[in-house]
Amino acid sequence: MYALIVYDVEVKRVSRIHKFLKRHLNWVQNSVFEGELTESQIEAVRAGLHRLMVKDVDSAMIYTAREERWLNKEVIGRERGKTTNLL
Amino acid sequence: MYALIVYDVEVKRVSRIHKFLKRHLNWVQNSVFEGELTESQIEAVRAGLHRLMVKDVDSAMIYTAREERWLNKEVIGRERGKTTNLL
Repeated sequence: MYALIVYDVEVKRVSRIHKFLKRHLNWVQNSVFEGELTESQIEAVRAGLHRLMVKDVDSAMIYTAREERWLNKEVIGRERGKTTNLL
Repeated sequence: MYALIVYDVEVKRVSRIHKFLKRHLNWVQNSVFEGELTESQIEAVRAGLHRLMVKDVDSAMIYTAREERWLNKEVIGRERGKTTNLL
């Protein structure tokens, strides 16, 4: 299952949440991660976010598509999550 | 076609790009917009981003799914793009 996660959390929690998501997904931009995850990996990510976030302040969205090919992606400008800039 | 746009641009261009995207899409979080767009509306959004962004500095990603139901969405914490908090 293809997952895309965007978050908007208080500054003091950004680094911890970034590190946590990086263990499971690829960083693509600012506060955006994506990657191929199994149902149980998504469950682990969901549980981690519930644990790390303060839910009346922070916000995160998990978008999932059963097949990666259902989701088309187009980058304008710099592609941040790459070590080399392909554009 | 369902579109999800995330951007990461220099502070001085945030407001202009936010306002531009708001004319076409729904604001859902920080620098994330989504909405149902036709092919020609997506083309207009793409052209606008190319015009407003400085491409060796800024970054934006346009994710599209042909059908909204192909993309499942789950919110953790606050749902920012709503005037009332449904969670």
